Amino acid sequence: MSATNEPLQKENSAAVKEVLAANASYAASFGVKGTLALPPARRFAILTCMDARLDPAKFAGLSEGDAHVVRNAGGRASDDAIRSLVISHKLLGTREWFVIHHTDCGMQLFTDDIMRNLLSRSLKTAQIDENGWRNTEETGGSQEARFIAFLPFASLEESVVEDVLRIRNHPLVSPEIPVYGYIYDVKTGRLQEVARATEAGKARIGQAVTVAESSVAS
Amino acid sequence: MSATNEPLQKENSAAVKEVLAANASYAASFGVKGTLALPPARRFAILTCMDARLDPAKFAGLSEGDAHVVRNAGGRASDDAIRSLVISHKLLGTREWFVIHHTDCGMQLFTDDIMRNLLSRSLKTAQIDENGWRNTEETGGSQEARFIAFLPFASLEESVVEDVLRIRNHPLVSPEIPVYGYIYDVKTGRLQEVARATEAGKARIGQAVTVAESSVAS
Repeated sequence: MSATNEPLQKENSAAVKEVLAANASYAASFGVKGTLALPPARRFAILTCMDARLDPAKFAGLSEGDAHVVRNAGGRASDDAIRSLVISHKLLGTREWFVIHHTDCGMQLFTDDIMRNLLSRSLKTAQIDENGWRNTEETGGSQEARFIAFLPFASLEESVVEDVLRIRNHPLVSPEIPVYGYIYDVKTGRLQEVARATEAGKARIGQAVTVAESSVAS
Repeated sequence: MSATNEPLQKENSAAVKEVLAANASYAASFGVKGTLALPPARRFAILTCMDARLDPAKFAGLSEGDAHVVRNAGGRASDDAIRSLVISHKLLGTREWFVIHHTDCGMQLFTDDIMRNLLSRSLKTAQIDENGWRNTEETGGSQEARFIAFLPFASLEESVVEDVLRIRNHPLVSPEIPVYGYIYDVKTGRLQEVARATEAGKARIGQAVTVAESSVAS
């Protein structure tokens, strides 16, 4: 703890100052948004990548209050993304989910082996060139990355199918929720459906649920 | 697989149609955004909640290409959020991170026990009233939730401190990255710093790193 009572404010970085200035401007005209309900009004959720070029509210036409947005490196159907989606449906009523990966994704630029090797020798930002990734210095690394799956992928389309299927097959995901697969093109801003993913993510209602229930009962 | 070659398009829900229509409009005026670089231009990342009322690009003043945005239920520093942040710094060069939770968060409305009990009896959306959560029907549940920590929290401010500390203390997080803690007020749109969190998340550079290194060496 600092020995003084001076606010942390005076030490703020440029990023903090800019974020707080932008926030003050946003809050100044917040208006009726302050009365929005907690559950998403349009009852769907989007799982997508953390990539800075993606603005899901803009590319999917969301206003505040409309939809849940879950984001991680790659937009992968990690355990944590599924935790979030299960909460989204079970407690907050979403009933359709979009999985949206994108072109030129950083997750296609490395493998677990590369990441573990880089981190074992330094935690600092690495550089990439025609010879691949390299550390700029080699000190203070950690072996901890050997215990983490970073979830990179080689094929963009396959990654969407894989993630939709993982969600579809999860035991806590209601068979009534359709899961759609899309790719966002960072060069055009366009969403393109991955038909195989959407097909794999179709809701299983009526017949399928009845079969499952009677097989448990018999 | 469907036996016909008819496009999935004709079966689209209202949500899908609306998302695709909004996307077409966004893409139509995409312009120079198609040339943005992969690494975040402003070199920071935000970890926040999936809540529908939050639009991080708006409340923090982000344009496409500016910053990584990681979102999950609660904005928690889960293993997956840390996976994303480590990729964000190590491969894509962010050097400051914001953890932003918010008022009126759904994660304060339940406990793991409540969630596990609800899901054990039905996967469908539950309802909440003055007597707490209840299922609207009791069929097709799963015991799988007993193996998941849903990461709800009782104290909003403590949850920010806890998450900043978890990131700060993670062995794959560079000590040079400051981690800031904030609460977003859904009634006003304002960000409020959690001073204890930002203090706990301070970068540990110079002296601290030297001490750590010499203690390893000795």
